[in-house]
Amino acid sequence: MFLSKSPLAFSKGSLTRQIINGHGALWSKTLSTGPLAGEPKRPALTTEIPGPESRRLLQELNTMQEAASVQLFADYEKSTGNYLVDVDGNVLLDVFMQISSMPLGYNHPAILGAVANSDNHKIIANRPALGSFPGRDWPKRLKNVLLRKGVAAPGLTQITTMMCGSCSNENAFKNIFIWYADKKRHGAPFTREEMESCMINQSPGSPRYSILSFKGAFHGRTLGSLSTTHSKYIHKIDVPAFDWPIASFPEYKYPLEENVRENKKEDERCLAEIEDLIVKYDKEKNIPVAGIIIEPIQSEGGDHHASPEFFQELRKVSSKHGAALLIDEVQTGGGPTGKMWCHEHFNLESPPDVVTFSKKMQLGGYYHTPDLKPKQSYRVYNTWMGDPSKLILLEAIVNTIEKENLLNQVVRVGDYTLGKLKDLQKEVSGKINSVRGRGTFIAFDCTTPASRDEVISKLHAKGIQAGGCGVQAVRLRPALTFNEYHADIFLDALRSILKE
Amino acid sequence: MFLSKSPLAFSKGSLTRQIINGHGALWSKTLSTGPLAGEPKRPALTTEIPGPESRRLLQELNTMQEAASVQLFADYEKSTGNYLVDVDGNVLLDVFMQISSMPLGYNHPAILGAVANSDNHKIIANRPALGSFPGRDWPKRLKNVLLRKGVAAPGLTQITTMMCGSCSNENAFKNIFIWYADKKRHGAPFTREEMESCMINQSPGSPRYSILSFKGAFHGRTLGSLSTTHSKYIHKIDVPAFDWPIASFPEYKYPLEENVRENKKEDERCLAEIEDLIVKYDKEKNIPVAGIIIEPIQSEGGDHHASPEFFQELRKVSSKHGAALLIDEVQTGGGPTGKMWCHEHFNLESPPDVVTFSKKMQLGGYYHTPDLKPKQSYRVYNTWMGDPSKLILLEAIVNTIEKENLLNQVVRVGDYTLGKLKDLQKEVSGKINSVRGRGTFIAFDCTTPASRDEVISKLHAKGIQAGGCGVQAVRLRPALTFNEYHADIFLDALRSILKE
Repeated sequence: MFLSKSPLAFSKGSLTRQIINGHGALWSKTLSTGPLAGEPKRPALTTEIPGPESRRLLQELNTMQEAASVQLFADYEKSTGNYLVDVDGNVLLDVFMQISSMPLGYNHPAILGAVANSDNHKIIANRPALGSFPGRDWPKRLKNVLLRKGVAAPGLTQITTMMCGSCSNENAFKNIFIWYADKKRHGAPFTREEMESCMINQSPGSPRYSILSFKGAFHGRTLGSLSTTHSKYIHKIDVPAFDWPIASFPEYKYPLEENVRENKKEDERCLAEIEDLIVKYDKEKNIPVAGIIIEPIQSEGGDHHASPEFFQELRKVSSKHGAALLIDEVQTGGGPTGKMWCHEHFNLESPPDVVTFSKKMQLGGYYHTPDLKPKQSYRVYNTWMGDPSKLILLEAIVNTIEKENLLNQVVRVGDYTLGKLKDLQKEVSGKINSVRGRGTFIAFDCTTPASRDEVISKLHAKGIQAGGCGVQAVRLRPALTFNEYHADIFLDALRSILKE
Repeated sequence: MFLSKSPLAFSKGSLTRQIINGHGALWSKTLSTGPLAGEPKRPALTTEIPGPESRRLLQELNTMQEAASVQLFADYEKSTGNYLVDVDGNVLLDVFMQISSMPLGYNHPAILGAVANSDNHKIIANRPALGSFPGRDWPKRLKNVLLRKGVAAPGLTQITTMMCGSCSNENAFKNIFIWYADKKRHGAPFTREEMESCMINQSPGSPRYSILSFKGAFHGRTLGSLSTTHSKYIHKIDVPAFDWPIASFPEYKYPLEENVRENKKEDERCLAEIEDLIVKYDKEKNIPVAGIIIEPIQSEGGDHHASPEFFQELRKVSSKHGAALLIDEVQTGGGPTGKMWCHEHFNLESPPDVVTFSKKMQLGGYYHTPDLKPKQSYRVYNTWMGDPSKLILLEAIVNTIEKENLLNQVVRVGDYTLGKLKDLQKEVSGKINSVRGRGTFIAFDCTTPASRDEVISKLHAKGIQAGGCGVQAVRLRPALTFNEYHADIFLDALRSILKE
């Protein structure tokens, strides 16, 4: 439909009419990129958002569940590439992409082809208990997709698949606790007391071990992962939590190049605090730290970055204290930072012990070292242990990333976008600050939570689906297929909003 | 392939040859049921299980993950109806069905049709964040599939979808805690102290509330749900747990009809213990019980049944103490007891507050009362909030259940199988005991864990894929399409094993 109709066609009979100019004259001259095949030239609105049909459906959904978080109802039949079409016919440039879950955008031909391929239909139709009855192709698919060179987290040879991000972290915690307990008992068998006390949730069988996490972190919302999440109170209030240590994540001053010395001190302060907490929780509270969980970029919490040096030292601190290092790449993994895994930017001395993933990878899971492989079966286990039908989608995704060299594109488009945003930051002095990012995983801060919400709402009104994070940040989570042409549409819209 | 080749064809060039007689002469005369279209007449083995190809694949998988729980590698292309075909060409009558996850058996035409239908392909291809950008059809599908009369848990109008059983229970717990806290503060807004303390996992923001669970229960393996699981130590050992109360689940003497008075006393003992624990955890430990979680039949724990009267009283106890009643129907839901939800057998005075599901329903989630609907958004939320592609499968499943009247068939076949097993129990006096079940959700005990494992292993050798549960039980979890013809094959095999 997009090739045959101009965006203007959408406005026929519509309530309002807004056509957004996609090409900033200043920014686009040197670039040859453009809309993808099948994409419209630019966003086009026919109604306010949410429009009348979205509002009608929301009313319907609200009778069945608490649905106030719904922004709009999408038309996934019509959405394509970087453009989300809603049920009112609004065509939005989507730089948020289902909270970072759609690496190739909507209805990419490679994915549609995989779904249409009848060879895959019996994989989609049957729901196997992978821990007991995996299909014939499962080892090969794990090897060729998740453990493929260039896809797997470097240095980690073991893979456990799960259903979503939260349960990936939860099961990774269990893996870490099992490994830690085995070290503590020097490989000795379980005692009778351990076997009996764990059945009633008491130590020593249910030990008081902890996972150290960071202020501002987000690692999921089930009770174990929620105990390591500290992004917003509304995620946590009224829900019981484990008493586990929480350290400061570096808070940098921007621009980074002007604050090198202060930010280095901030790294040192945080690292010292981490070591203090590990010792305190072990010696004073008797809740030893079995593992440390950290995002390479704190995403939900507000796109907080930390330096490679901080992560290098954290790797050392973690090893020194016998705690496993878990890097949570649920939001950063799968390419948006220009590498498959964000922590690849950090040049760690040795790999993290565990790397969890979900979102862009279509299913949950984690990579880990052979050291963390449990010695007994049924310890990390559940009925489904992931979903082979999602590996079909992921296979199409990683093939496309390779074939189209999308990680290089992410670096190029990210540099372009970041540069333009920094220019804009100067241009509208004071209205946005702390422009930051790796690849197209980019954010900037507004001056207040209210002004951030206003920017996102005005972007909506200009046909851009963006997202917020943290207190007052706007975040970009576009598809890996997002190019300079799309970036210009976003930048033009943002520029005109900030210049108003 | 099954229609064109006799099972004998499988044995050509095989290592061993075993053809199982499927029809017990005594048991089958009065029944007109038989193999389903496309099914083989009976199981057929070509190798021991696991066979050489399964063992080769297991070796491969073991290099990537801890895989000792794998029983065999399946050939999901060739599996059909009640028969699981493995990669060595063994054809097994499957009475376990992927730990109860395949309500229509393998490759049912209704499900294959739904997957092949190109109208569904864009739903399978796109991974939406359902809490923010649901698709056009989502409210209608929720209404027409999960909330359809005859599918939804009676009396519960609200639905929250999730990815798996564990996270359904975890999120249901959160829903209960949120509801309970709101009651405690009489609907007043959060205090600043609550908002701040929850961010560092401390009370009052992270309150010391609990979920009461039962000895022998299984509710999942993530840290919150694992705190309510008490089936086997290997599921729990070395993993931190919440100090939450654990009550006795009734342990009945069988046969039930001969032990009415004693079993009634057992109900009373357990109910008194539950009330004692609620009071003790509230007054003495200051960890009030916000909710009670219970399976209608303790499944992983050993197929422990409790009487309708016990559940009726539990509903009253729960209301009396202001705790929500959560019935976990992850394993029992979706029809295997002859009703869509097992607790429908109990004639409760009022519905449970929450009913969780997964497995046969293809995706996780829970039904709940409007009372439990959170007043703020983003409290029960995550990126995916379920998976529309699984609702496509579920729609085909519930349509088939209705069209083929499968719940009636489950009752009929269950009665048949249970009767025959009770006869067998007498016939092989002492070798099996406590035959019990609802519908085809049937189990019996062997005399020791070792003799149970031996029975399951010998069933394998006769071409039957069965499963164990609890200490020494064998459980049946066949598809809803399992009929007397299949039951006879199983019963004949079991009879000959027990008669050896």
